[in-house]
Amino acid sequence: METLYAAVDLGGTKIAAALGNATGSLLHTETIPTPPGANPEQVLAAIGTLVDSLSARAGRRPTALGVGIPGLIDTRTGHVHFVPNLPTQWRGVPAGAFLEHSLRMPVRILNDARCATFGELLFGHGPEYPSFVLFTLGTGIGGGVVIDGRLRLGPLSAAGEIGHQTVQLDGPICGCGNPGCLEAIASGPAIARAAGFPDAESAASAARQGDHRAQRAFHTAATYLGIAAANLVTSLHPDAVLFTGGMAELVDLLLMPVRAAVSERVRMFPAQGVAVRRAAAGPNAGLLGALALNIAPTKLAL
Amino acid sequence: METLYAAVDLGGTKIAAALGNATGSLLHTETIPTPPGANPEQVLAAIGTLVDSLSARAGRRPTALGVGIPGLIDTRTGHVHFVPNLPTQWRGVPAGAFLEHSLRMPVRILNDARCATFGELLFGHGPEYPSFVLFTLGTGIGGGVVIDGRLRLGPLSAAGEIGHQTVQLDGPICGCGNPGCLEAIASGPAIARAAGFPDAESAASAARQGDHRAQRAFHTAATYLGIAAANLVTSLHPDAVLFTGGMAELVDLLLMPVRAAVSERVRMFPAQGVAVRRAAAGPNAGLLGALALNIAPTKLAL
Repeated sequence: METLYAAVDLGGTKIAAALGNATGSLLHTETIPTPPGANPEQVLAAIGTLVDSLSARAGRRPTALGVGIPGLIDTRTGHVHFVPNLPTQWRGVPAGAFLEHSLRMPVRILNDARCATFGELLFGHGPEYPSFVLFTLGTGIGGGVVIDGRLRLGPLSAAGEIGHQTVQLDGPICGCGNPGCLEAIASGPAIARAAGFPDAESAASAARQGDHRAQRAFHTAATYLGIAAANLVTSLHPDAVLFTGGMAELVDLLLMPVRAAVSERVRMFPAQGVAVRRAAAGPNAGLLGALALNIAPTKLAL
Repeated sequence: METLYAAVDLGGTKIAAALGNATGSLLHTETIPTPPGANPEQVLAAIGTLVDSLSARAGRRPTALGVGIPGLIDTRTGHVHFVPNLPTQWRGVPAGAFLEHSLRMPVRILNDARCATFGELLFGHGPEYPSFVLFTLGTGIGGGVVIDGRLRLGPLSAAGEIGHQTVQLDGPICGCGNPGCLEAIASGPAIARAAGFPDAESAASAARQGDHRAQRAFHTAATYLGIAAANLVTSLHPDAVLFTGGMAELVDLLLMPVRAAVSERVRMFPAQGVAVRRAAAGPNAGLLGALALNIAPTKLAL
């Protein structure tokens, strides 16, 4: 019987969980709302219950669990350092040990954007591109950096925060506090605000129908996203720059201008060989990455 | 008898050569002017003559040669792809094979800024910092990226061109053709021009004596250098950002403001642990790196 792995993607509003196999097929999935106001122990208990419930459906237990958490995690120890979007204090919570104890299986924990990158590495375009940079474009901009087939983590699985590169001196203040981050200019909400629309989707429709303000908002976002992508290409010469998340679907408004920016701004070496394209792993990249944590742990640069 | 290695640093105006041992001691050195207007074969022949001359002085031959060349090199094949600062056409020159044939020893060739980074990796602060970024600050701004003890190269030893990150949209046109590169704002000549002085050294003296225009020029350069450094920290979470070259000595005018910028702009994780300091390998970093090519070739991410 094939080995089963458990994967959990913990978010501020929902917790997605799945069982999957070593080839990245998600066999059983379940999603619950993140218990509002719950303390870390309660959230971790809910994760344990989810895994138990999926095991019951599958008729057997997975061999290990991988978890993506939107924060700073010491992946070696499984200790949580900081989670900005969950209400209660997570600093110092030994989440890995807690889950290993309650589920009696090995547990690996990683930052969620790095998890999505890891999913792309194993089950998306990763096999084509030994070195790549992934941008996750949505309400925030996150990402990850893969060098020679291994996901760069750093001590808190925080390497890859490429949405927090300063692209405009004295630009708009970002949620992180720094002025001029890419995220403060090119995230969905930032584009919507600049375009004067409630969300990026309606701003995109308007831009395509000729609304000048919406077009300008996307032009600005694409310009700075292009600079951020070109700078990473110049610094790392990866094989590809990939984009995922809802905004990555806006090929005409974002992806094509970014591709042009990379080819115009990278002059020190021929960058035509660097692919600039959508990621392949899709909306389940985070779960796939959590699954992958126990399938290919040597691809984590711990 | 200890093993000897040969090292050559080919520049637009001079060729430096040395013999050294596995611990990075340069035992014999010799420098000649780069033959003006010489074709690649003549320049390579001059390199061969230098190595022969050093061998004669040492009374024996080195086991291998490492060469730093200011251009795009396929380090796997030893083929030169492009050399901007040498007069004649180097494209496609099999420099490695040529030197291996004439000197009858293994030869490795690398871009010169990557060579300096490799020197720092083996014989500078590298042993303290498994992952670091090096800026070479001078008439241009180059550098290199080391991840987990290995120098990132990419297919043409061109990864690490961190001086050609765009830091200012529509900024001054860089020598590479792109507007707003860090090099176009923060290189020695760029600072001197902005300060109204013939060179960066006199601009630095003037800034220290209270010249407002010179102070502004350094402030601008340090601001953008700080952004570039902070962006690399945010993206890669290295253990250190190191600075070498003449301008790296300007601790008060450049290094301290850059250190402050990294700590102010990196908000997504605690960056206090990231060292921001001068490199240790000094002006011979390029030669030391060329020497190191044959001492620790596994540290090249080929």
